[in-house]
Amino acid sequence: MTTPAPRITGVVPPVVTPLTQEGAVDVPSLERLVERLLAAGVDGIFALGSSGETVFLTDSQRDLVLDTVVKTVGGAVPVIAGCIEPTTPRVLDRAGAAARLGVDGLVATAPFYAIVGPHETERHFRALASSVELPLFAYDIPVCVHTKLSTELLVRLAAEGVLAGVKDSSGDDVAFRQLALAVAERTPGGGFSLLTGHEVVVDAMMLAGASGSVPGLGNVDPDGYVRLHRAAVDGDWDAARREQDRLTRLFRIVDAADPATSAGATRGVGAFKTALALLGVIDGNAVSLPLRPLDADETARVRAHLELAGLL
Amino acid sequence: MTTPAPRITGVVPPVVTPLTQEGAVDVPSLERLVERLLAAGVDGIFALGSSGETVFLTDSQRDLVLDTVVKTVGGAVPVIAGCIEPTTPRVLDRAGAAARLGVDGLVATAPFYAIVGPHETERHFRALASSVELPLFAYDIPVCVHTKLSTELLVRLAAEGVLAGVKDSSGDDVAFRQLALAVAERTPGGGFSLLTGHEVVVDAMMLAGASGSVPGLGNVDPDGYVRLHRAAVDGDWDAARREQDRLTRLFRIVDAADPATSAGATRGVGAFKTALALLGVIDGNAVSLPLRPLDADETARVRAHLELAGLL
Amino acid sequence: MTTPAPRITGVVPPVVTPLTQEGAVDVPSLERLVERLLAAGVDGIFALGSSGETVFLTDSQRDLVLDTVVKTVGGAVPVIAGCIEPTTPRVLDRAGAAARLGVDGLVATAPFYAIVGPHETERHFRALASSVELPLFAYDIPVCVHTKLSTELLVRLAAEGVLAGVKDSSGDDVAFRQLALAVAERTPGGGFSLLTGHEVVVDAMMLAGASGSVPGLGNVDPDGYVRLHRAAVDGDWDAARREQDRLTRLFRIVDAADPATSAGATRGVGAFKTALALLGVIDGNAVSLPLRPLDADETARVRAHLELAGLL
Amino acid sequence: MTTPAPRITGVVPPVVTPLTQEGAVDVPSLERLVERLLAAGVDGIFALGSSGETVFLTDSQRDLVLDTVVKTVGGAVPVIAGCIEPTTPRVLDRAGAAARLGVDGLVATAPFYAIVGPHETERHFRALASSVELPLFAYDIPVCVHTKLSTELLVRLAAEGVLAGVKDSSGDDVAFRQLALAVAERTPGGGFSLLTGHEVVVDAMMLAGASGSVPGLGNVDPDGYVRLHRAAVDGDWDAARREQDRLTRLFRIVDAADPATSAGATRGVGAFKTALALLGVIDGNAVSLPLRPLDADETARVRAHLELAGLL
Repeated sequence: MTTPAPRITGVVPPVVTPLTQEGAVDVPSLERLVERLLAAGVDGIFALGSSGETVFLTDSQRDLVLDTVVKTVGGAVPVIAGCIEPTTPRVLDRAGAAARLGVDGLVATAPFYAIVGPHETERHFRALASSVELPLFAYDIPVCVHTKLSTELLVRLAAEGVLAGVKDSSGDDVAFRQLALAVAERTPGGGFSLLTGHEVVVDAMMLAGASGSVPGLGNVDPDGYVRLHRAAVDGDWDAARREQDRLTRLFRIVDAADPATSAGATRGVGAFKTALALLGVIDGNAVSLPLRPLDADETARVRAHLELAGLL
Repeated sequence: MTTPAPRITGVVPPVVTPLTQEGAVDVPSLERLVERLLAAGVDGIFALGSSGETVFLTDSQRDLVLDTVVKTVGGAVPVIAGCIEPTTPRVLDRAGAAARLGVDGLVATAPFYAIVGPHETERHFRALASSVELPLFAYDIPVCVHTKLSTELLVRLAAEGVLAGVKDSSGDDVAFRQLALAVAERTPGGGFSLLTGHEVVVDAMMLAGASGSVPGLGNVDPDGYVRLHRAAVDGDWDAARREQDRLTRLFRIVDAADPATSAGATRGVGAFKTALALLGVIDGNAVSLPLRPLDADETARVRAHLELAGLL
Repeated sequence: MTTPAPRITGVVPPVVTPLTQEGAVDVPSLERLVERLLAAGVDGIFALGSSGETVFLTDSQRDLVLDTVVKTVGGAVPVIAGCIEPTTPRVLDRAGAAARLGVDGLVATAPFYAIVGPHETERHFRALASSVELPLFAYDIPVCVHTKLSTELLVRLAAEGVLAGVKDSSGDDVAFRQLALAVAERTPGGGFSLLTGHEVVVDAMMLAGASGSVPGLGNVDPDGYVRLHRAAVDGDWDAARREQDRLTRLFRIVDAADPATSAGATRGVGAFKTALALLGVIDGNAVSLPLRPLDADETARVRAHLELAGLL
Repeated sequence: MTTPAPRITGVVPPVVTPLTQEGAVDVPSLERLVERLLAAGVDGIFALGSSGETVFLTDSQRDLVLDTVVKTVGGAVPVIAGCIEPTTPRVLDRAGAAARLGVDGLVATAPFYAIVGPHETERHFRALASSVELPLFAYDIPVCVHTKLSTELLVRLAAEGVLAGVKDSSGDDVAFRQLALAVAERTPGGGFSLLTGHEVVVDAMMLAGASGSVPGLGNVDPDGYVRLHRAAVDGDWDAARREQDRLTRLFRIVDAADPATSAGATRGVGAFKTALALLGVIDGNAVSLPLRPLDADETARVRAHLELAGLL
């Protein structure tokens, strides 16, 4: 538990899960998508995250996704796997499957649905870390979990080696900065990964101390995120900002779906898949129930953004 | 989908899931608990609800719970099964298992974790109803799901026969009253069940139009809830209120656990199980990770409440 | 501080504040409205509550409202005055003005806008009670204040005589029942008023232990609420429920305004004022900025509900 | 309404309001504080913001604060005044007073306490802008107001010249970046001020497109924020980050108060005032009821942070 965890840095896209019209995992599309990410020079792959529709997939579908990603990556970069379940025993179930399928790290949220407090959340992460051999990353995503992981808890678990990193989708830049500073003070040897999940502020969060990013939009434009990361690492903040501004405009594809008949996941994952289908990377833009795929008008709006961004 | 659903009324306790120290389902304890509920005269059993720790159990544990409950009940009263999963495909997975195991109705929440809006929620319930043969009950529990089902949606789905009932744990008595009135107007032939999940206001909600209750505390004192229900049905509201006041005092067992080191589920389910162990109904008060069982001091406080209520 | 407070029971409508087209207080309309409430047999008047648009009025307008209400009531029933301001010093400012104008009690919420916790909230109510001579009622309205007053705090302040009562607009019937029971145990001599602000569950909350109600809809149909209260006090719960069902249907006037262009206060206060104008009680349905008055189509929908309820 | 507003950039501290032990405004202390800020080279002063305890002060106290600040500043930099009231008529009341006292701009939030939606919020800002001659800044502070101003609304009001700027205390960096980009596209001539209120991410938000900052901690260390701003403007992001890291450590003074007996405003404003008293800038650390001043132990912790930061 106290061995220095393999530090993950750079661009780690949360790979979407292409589906057939019938709702099955579209393995050839997933393979092409992963290969394209690797070709762009990403530093890792996050499978079965929120963008990967993990909470919509059955366990056998999840296993198929992990198996496909691990084999396609072939050890080129680390693969970390979301084990997104409401409680400790269920996360452990998924962690076991992921470990058997050969991933390099596990990602878990605080408990959800179950009504818990800070003591239960801490017990959850400690129980996970003591039961699994792989590095454990905390996924801080209050918009889904409805709890924000406290800076104090994260710093403590980082210092003790319980956690190998945080994937921050909290939208709380104040807490992110305080976390970055405190982790730097408390884990001086490094080894802790602080990854931002917000694709429109990667430059700013790198300046604030992030180790890297997990951008959903990185499915669509992995080259852009790789360029952005390298500029930030090189200290060329003007170049990083220009790339970020371009990507922030591209992110407007998530506004393509009619807000009167769609919400969050439909708009986000639906747009990423529609863009990937337009780019010819995956075969179709099917999403899981109860989401709906983008229609022709909405797809035209996605296409316009891709053209503006120079991708089509 | 439009056949009149079997209407469920009366007291339908959400049965807890007794566990061994090792975290396995304690089948003999569960059998004794169900038998005690039947002996008290309850009108149905709700298995795998929030009180049943459903989101802590693996699928095989869930199957064992349903199998045990269905066999122990032996058709004496309806058994309805929670299919508590974040999205449509995963609920359908559980619904299939529950149907195979012989339950009489299914209970599902709105999607959770996934970021959705009203259109996705409506599509979810319609997709579930069109795929399963059994009556479908909506479980409105915003404290877990973080969405309140709108009265307008529930009334519409009730009128169309998509839903056979609602289990209301919303804590929103205003919406409950409006729902009761609107459902009475729109489903004049009856057939829709409006069940309150709030054990301390069953008398008031019966006056407001409830068909019955799903009281977690009914695990501990089923006789009290049966008396309360019968008094309400007979229009003896003073008797109903007296019984309710007694049960509201008993409900203070959920305050037994130290609030500095416990929250929601630990305090509620933990207290119910501790009371059942003290009453000799189940073998122990073990709960699932990341919850913790009540300790000796906390157990003493539960015992004091049981004595005050005349149960010990 | 420990003298038994004058207990307020029965129907205490939160009187709306009629306005001219120019936004001035319409004193003759307010006088007619108060006289109509008294004629219906209400047990008190709550001036400058949320329905009274108190947070939209300047201090001189507020003084004019209190002066008009106190003089029109002429001691026939108690008048309690909302002192709705974010913090202690500002509430005290309003409390002084209200006391000088001759009201019989004061109503204050927890602090709002200011970021505070339970200690600050307790200090707030204690500071108010020790500075004012009049009975102090806590106004529990989380939809506006964004904090729920805890049952534990309310019971403690009731037992010590700091508070003379609670006006509950929390929508939390579970907490309301627990409060009613605990207050009955802890203030055995009575003297504490537990008033529900939810006009569609008055019967149920009376069964649960309320002393009375503060129904916004009571502006429109005070006779109905007086009949409902008397039936509940007489133990004729079937009559209470029938009256409540009629009033719950009438409450649908708050759905008259187009939800695409209106929200909360526009829909509620706007509908009450429109109904009162249609009934000839007040001269017009003007509301304060940034609200908007109901338009002709919306007014027609209000009229239809009034006709259904037998008021027009 | 469409004339280009005077653009405010740079460091604009939200000046705290020193109080005597009796709760009166401590004018000499306020004068010394403002003079110190000017000497440090700040670019403006924001009076009567949240840090200025504006919702705790009576109207005459507020007038005294504005009069003191305007006279002390003497035109050296712009003074903008918070008009923090729940609704349009009340904000207008304060706006009139502020204009008479000679401020250079007004700051207003969305309506609070009143239950409103997006239409009411838009009507609110439009009514304010059309009634006042001074530039109007929107204050986006959901932690107090409990509504987030939408990017779409802010961009539209910016493009039309209704708003002269935004003071962002939303803690939502994603929305901030999208706002910065959209405003740059839609108001190409400039003239719109985008000011971050989050003192620990000023460097990152400057990179993301902020025009400046409104740091509460700037009361304590104005020199640090001036250095940080100049480094960012010069493109020396490494220097900006180092200064920000130092200030982020200093910001830990807000953790000095015991969390078991204090919350938000006590911890923040209480710490700023305690630091200023320790630095000899103001006479004491008194705060308004229901807040409490920091005690001796807590003050010692503030002192330690000041020493670490090189200020004592």
